[in-house]
Amino acid sequence: MPREPNSQSTGAGALLAILRDGQARTRAELAQLTGLARSTVSQRLDALMSHRWVVPTEDFISSGGRPAAAFAFNERVRVVLAADLGATHARLAVTDLGMTVLAERAAELPIDRGPEPTLEWLVTAFREMLAEIGRDLTQVCGVGVGLPGPVEHASGRPVNPPIMPGWDGFPVPEWLGARIGAPVLVDNDVNIMALGEHWTARPEVDHLIFIKIGTGIGCGIISGRRLHRGAQGAAGDVGHIRVPSSEALCRCGNVGCLEAVAGGAAMAAALRAAGVDARGSRDVVALMRAGDTRAARLIRQAGREIGGVMASIVNFFNPSVIVIGGDIAEAGEQVLAGVREAIYSRSLPLATQHLSIRASDLGDRAGIIGAAVMVVEHVLAPDTIDRALTG
Amino acid sequence: MPREPNSQSTGAGALLAILRDGQARTRAELAQLTGLARSTVSQRLDALMSHRWVVPTEDFISSGGRPAAAFAFNERVRVVLAADLGATHARLAVTDLGMTVLAERAAELPIDRGPEPTLEWLVTAFREMLAEIGRDLTQVCGVGVGLPGPVEHASGRPVNPPIMPGWDGFPVPEWLGARIGAPVLVDNDVNIMALGEHWTARPEVDHLIFIKIGTGIGCGIISGRRLHRGAQGAAGDVGHIRVPSSEALCRCGNVGCLEAVAGGAAMAAALRAAGVDARGSRDVVALMRAGDTRAARLIRQAGREIGGVMASIVNFFNPSVIVIGGDIAEAGEQVLAGVREAIYSRSLPLATQHLSIRASDLGDRAGIIGAAVMVVEHVLAPDTIDRALTG
Repeated sequence: MPREPNSQSTGAGALLAILRDGQARTRAELAQLTGLARSTVSQRLDALMSHRWVVPTEDFISSGGRPAAAFAFNERVRVVLAADLGATHARLAVTDLGMTVLAERAAELPIDRGPEPTLEWLVTAFREMLAEIGRDLTQVCGVGVGLPGPVEHASGRPVNPPIMPGWDGFPVPEWLGARIGAPVLVDNDVNIMALGEHWTARPEVDHLIFIKIGTGIGCGIISGRRLHRGAQGAAGDVGHIRVPSSEALCRCGNVGCLEAVAGGAAMAAALRAAGVDARGSRDVVALMRAGDTRAARLIRQAGREIGGVMASIVNFFNPSVIVIGGDIAEAGEQVLAGVREAIYSRSLPLATQHLSIRASDLGDRAGIIGAAVMVVEHVLAPDTIDRALTG
Repeated sequence: MPREPNSQSTGAGALLAILRDGQARTRAELAQLTGLARSTVSQRLDALMSHRWVVPTEDFISSGGRPAAAFAFNERVRVVLAADLGATHARLAVTDLGMTVLAERAAELPIDRGPEPTLEWLVTAFREMLAEIGRDLTQVCGVGVGLPGPVEHASGRPVNPPIMPGWDGFPVPEWLGARIGAPVLVDNDVNIMALGEHWTARPEVDHLIFIKIGTGIGCGIISGRRLHRGAQGAAGDVGHIRVPSSEALCRCGNVGCLEAVAGGAAMAAALRAAGVDARGSRDVVALMRAGDTRAARLIRQAGREIGGVMASIVNFFNPSVIVIGGDIAEAGEQVLAGVREAIYSRSLPLATQHLSIRASDLGDRAGIIGAAVMVVEHVLAPDTIDRALTG
């Protein structure tokens, strides 16, 4: 037998989607925006209020006639747990449904300890953070996790991650879900950073590229306001695009990859070969800041090489924003100038005339904001809300 | 006062979207698929049938109990007018809502005659084609037009098209709409070709790149089953991506553009410089077929250059299908081999393991099929249907 849906709530998710912009609205305004009868709007608001997704605001809105009650999205009704795990560092946050960070923590956490110790630590840290702000696990609507390697998004499992021994195929969503009691979404770190940057740049930006220049180089792609993961989830792997006039050997086994000339690991190796003590991308930036001209020259050259590759991508993809993040982005204009110079001189004028190329505003926080966005977009999708209200 | 919608029809568009796969279904099946009450399904089917979008099929479907009436999408209820205008040729079609071609015509039609003579001809030809199949303008639900130059999709107006004198800013939708009495959608030729190829490859293919190798080189991009036009509608302009080790002057004023070494015009020019009579891309392919080794060498080299550029794009975009079309694609394996070789040797294994690289199956018809798809997706969008039924 077909299930008889609760007709009061069908479409309530669409109403909530309107209110997510943070503006309070009266029943009459919502009726006008949706074309629904005011009685239908009232029924749907009642369903949303019964779950506290929507609350009446204290203010009344007057539009000529007598003041009318207004209703607003209740960003605080649930919390999101967000984790951005890097090779050696972790950053965690508890956010509300408006991506406001309620609690935050950063820690050294080597990912190569393997999944169970890492995720045990994560669960403990999240519990402590929730307690700090007087919340508990029952209020968690979802968990978002970014990992420093390829992830099959549908299953949330890492796929042959090069720097994550023991993680290949590990069922992160099931493992965490069983302990936290909420849906868990997992993606790779550049994808969640792109989501975080796009959230911050919304609503005007439809097409955005986030490029992370760290040990390696990769990017996250927003097409039509949605993450473009590609056919095998491999989109954005720009670190292994071949650059002209380079025969540098890459860790992938090929020669001439962008990463092998412009990645932090490659630059650190070049400095070590010149007798300078540099272990990784952070050291390269620190040396540049300390006035080391070799480090500065490498970083500027990296900017030009990255810009050369991005110039082709701008012609192909025509983004409105390119955001540059990762450790090397901390070098600021030293790296940005080269990127901009190469893109403006080699991309078509139509594609660059309104193109913004900038360093990340979110910095270290792009990942946790994006992990929260990934969860909230899933939990507040109109279909999910409708199901939650009828279920 | 908010408008009271016709509650019988709200959501009818979603029902129609299900039936568009061509399969007939009973009320019970539709109720099960949508979760709607069977009485609601009946009301929505009645609304769709009153406009003949859906018709009862002659067959009855038995599923254990007594046979039940089945309902099917009525692809023939309206027709679409589709035009693919090139620099010198035009191809026109009348299709049904399932993209079946009911009438077709190809003609010499120099686009540089300007918009009014060209579009006058179009209107006359469409009227004749409709008469041939016993239809008329009242049955036309929309017109789709592909043009050989940049088009601002929202307004349907050409924007500084280099080979279309007199067309800059011409209001194609308004001009044609006034004469045909139906909505008109306009896009550039590679975008509609990508839509046509994606329609043919559906439903499995989410991410597809169509690359047209003709006089110039450009591509149409499907991301997440939708056309990716980019921020200024300039996406896909791969003809002006710089290739290494070329200093060839391009018609855009830069040096080293892909088009300046691998485009049909560039190859014809190279042959002329060697004393061979070749006016354009078609001549280059004809010479190759006639056994001219210089033409064959140029085409194979073009394939490798195009493959080199596409290898970077594969790493960035991770498509599941690359389709190659345009005059030079008629050279078949002579050009495809080089494209494949460069992509497989330079892109990452994960991105190429399931990648299909093939010549267009639709050939000359990709544009008209895509123009029809563009119209049908607009006309049959659930929101549009719901509005049409309540309006």
